[in-house]
Amino acid sequence: MLIVKKFGGSSVADKERIYNVARRCIEDYQKGHEVVVVLSAMGKTTDGLLAKAAEINPNASKRELDMLLVTGEQVSVALMAMAMQALGVSAISLNAHQVMMHTNSAYGVAKLQRIDTQRIRNELDAGKIVVVTGFQGVNRKDDMTTLGRGGSDTTAVAIAAALHADKCEIFTDVDGVYTADPRIVPNARKLPEVTYSEMLEFATLGAKVLHNRSVELAKKYGVELIVRSSLNHEEGTVVREGTKMEKMLVSGVAADENTARISLIGMKDEPGIAFKLFNTLAMHNINIDIILQSVGRDGTKDISFTVARTDLKDSIALIEENLNNFTATRYEYEEDVAKLSIIGAGMTSNPGVAARMFEALSNIGVNIKMISTSEIRITVLIDRADVTRAMRAVHDAFEMVSA
Amino acid sequence: MLIVKKFGGSSVADKERIYNVARRCIEDYQKGHEVVVVLSAMGKTTDGLLAKAAEINPNASKRELDMLLVTGEQVSVALMAMAMQALGVSAISLNAHQVMMHTNSAYGVAKLQRIDTQRIRNELDAGKIVVVTGFQGVNRKDDMTTLGRGGSDTTAVAIAAALHADKCEIFTDVDGVYTADPRIVPNARKLPEVTYSEMLEFATLGAKVLHNRSVELAKKYGVELIVRSSLNHEEGTVVREGTKMEKMLVSGVAADENTARISLIGMKDEPGIAFKLFNTLAMHNINIDIILQSVGRDGTKDISFTVARTDLKDSIALIEENLNNFTATRYEYEEDVAKLSIIGAGMTSNPGVAARMFEALSNIGVNIKMISTSEIRITVLIDRADVTRAMRAVHDAFEMVSA
Repeated sequence: MLIVKKFGGSSVADKERIYNVARRCIEDYQKGHEVVVVLSAMGKTTDGLLAKAAEINPNASKRELDMLLVTGEQVSVALMAMAMQALGVSAISLNAHQVMMHTNSAYGVAKLQRIDTQRIRNELDAGKIVVVTGFQGVNRKDDMTTLGRGGSDTTAVAIAAALHADKCEIFTDVDGVYTADPRIVPNARKLPEVTYSEMLEFATLGAKVLHNRSVELAKKYGVELIVRSSLNHEEGTVVREGTKMEKMLVSGVAADENTARISLIGMKDEPGIAFKLFNTLAMHNINIDIILQSVGRDGTKDISFTVARTDLKDSIALIEENLNNFTATRYEYEEDVAKLSIIGAGMTSNPGVAARMFEALSNIGVNIKMISTSEIRITVLIDRADVTRAMRAVHDAFEMVSA
Repeated sequence: MLIVKKFGGSSVADKERIYNVARRCIEDYQKGHEVVVVLSAMGKTTDGLLAKAAEINPNASKRELDMLLVTGEQVSVALMAMAMQALGVSAISLNAHQVMMHTNSAYGVAKLQRIDTQRIRNELDAGKIVVVTGFQGVNRKDDMTTLGRGGSDTTAVAIAAALHADKCEIFTDVDGVYTADPRIVPNARKLPEVTYSEMLEFATLGAKVLHNRSVELAKKYGVELIVRSSLNHEEGTVVREGTKMEKMLVSGVAADENTARISLIGMKDEPGIAFKLFNTLAMHNINIDIILQSVGRDGTKDISFTVARTDLKDSIALIEENLNNFTATRYEYEEDVAKLSIIGAGMTSNPGVAARMFEALSNIGVNIKMISTSEIRITVLIDRADVTRAMRAVHDAFEMVSA
């Protein structure tokens, strides 16, 4: 079996942890598997390099920033290969140039385009564990690029896809994907399996287990992903196309507190007004989430929508500036809100799911301010103060508890 | 004019020094020159990386060590390019892969074989200062190599040769090459010019201004080298083929305290005995320096020679083991000795130079134990305790004092 294993920066932060990872990889190697390891920079290395750059030139070109940052992973992979050698196993480290991980030229947020497999294949054939730098690539000019935060997940999946690996294990500090955040819902249960689409919804909703781009890539190329802990040998959660029995209607509950609601009151009930509003926000890179439009009355209507709380200030500034243009008489906003979502691939084919969620919230007196639904997700906007008890109630209502 | 400028690790150890180097390079750039800058790793970076490697695996493969070490220069060049950009100048950093600096595969002590010039040429044509990693290369397997300590000097000279640069400036913490070590001979004078051969003798004799391989390379390709201080704008010393007037008979005096004398007594006066002795030492990588053979008497002879003091222990062990084989009755050795040399291209064509040196030593009662001469050098072995006053006396005798 060919296995790609990815470890983040905290998993290689010091000698002891480097050796833990080395031993973990050697276990599979000694079972006869081929092992490719993808690593991030050690601990806070990347932050340290960014601070150094900021000291020299706060407006440094992104090309030079990437040239600087890629040294971080190169240190990790060289030290890891040394640790494996010390444990008596043949290992070799490779950087983005040596593998040839081709990206576009968007320094700092580059996208992987193609990964050459020959060098890795040759080293595997020579009986070595291959340790590869995550997070980085090379563009057509032969310059170094980085994939942005969380990019090492993407590197691991792309390498797994290019090598037709049997699985791609992403090691994190959690055991896998849970039905809800165990810090909030104590009886949350670890999911043995989720689909790519569910995983994407979990990631979008703030359960930051996997980088979104890596899940999209895994879905595109059918790479079997496994999310598991670097601290123990628990099975973890398998992310793959939905082949599971339809027993679990709802896979999990997730909350997102980085949200705020804005309402525009008394807008003219004419075509094109909503477009004007949302286009203006989009032009300023502000993403709109849930949208609610009141039924027109007396020739006016109200529009409410949510934005990321971090975008609230900019949104308000744009609205004040364009209030006449948007034909609104005034605006309101609310910061103390949160989104609560249930996620599950079986949702659409099972009526009554939304009703059961709303009933659970109603039973404990939680008011629903807005509603949004997708194929595999139902999201409601509620007061932020209600998040914890709402999450628990919904979790219980769908019986997602441990067996 | 195309100028290659090389700065060592201490010249780029912190923000202030990085900016000093950046400004110094920009001065030339703004005069209309093309500038290529070669840098070592910042301050003690290389030592730090070596310590990290030793912590993980004291017997790490040299291939992985080089993979680790090359990150040091990459950090330097990226930060330097950022500093130049902050000063409003277009600059770009390049590593060994991006330039393509081809070496053999002798990890840790690799030899440069060829440097591609196209990328550097393109960036110069685009009006940029090009900042290149010293000390490193890429072998035919696409793996990273390092050239060994002092290798950045070699990188600079090799790039200057490949680009047909007009000059190659090596910046150090001294003003240039002196007639003697100014800490020992207070009235020592800075030499405006020396030949490649003289520079090689100075380097070999412990005046560690330039790495020997870089001088050999400069000689081979006729690269005009300039040794100057990174701390001031003094002219420095030009190293080039000997076109200077023959005014200065002797360019300088240098001492080497890393030496020891060994004597083998009562060897058979037969052909092949000396060969046996020196061949045995050579097979164990022990270099012999001055050799003195007594005239045969009673069918026996004595042979004395010097080795580096750091090789003394190994030499003695070999001699004890082979005493019968070498037909010697016994051996002696002396550790408290030093070599004192005068160096000068005009020496051979001027008789009486050796006599003047010996007279100066005799006048102050310094005993000469052994003598060795080359085309441009006369070396004597003396007691180590006499080095300082011997150096001053010889320096005075040849009137090498400041004007």
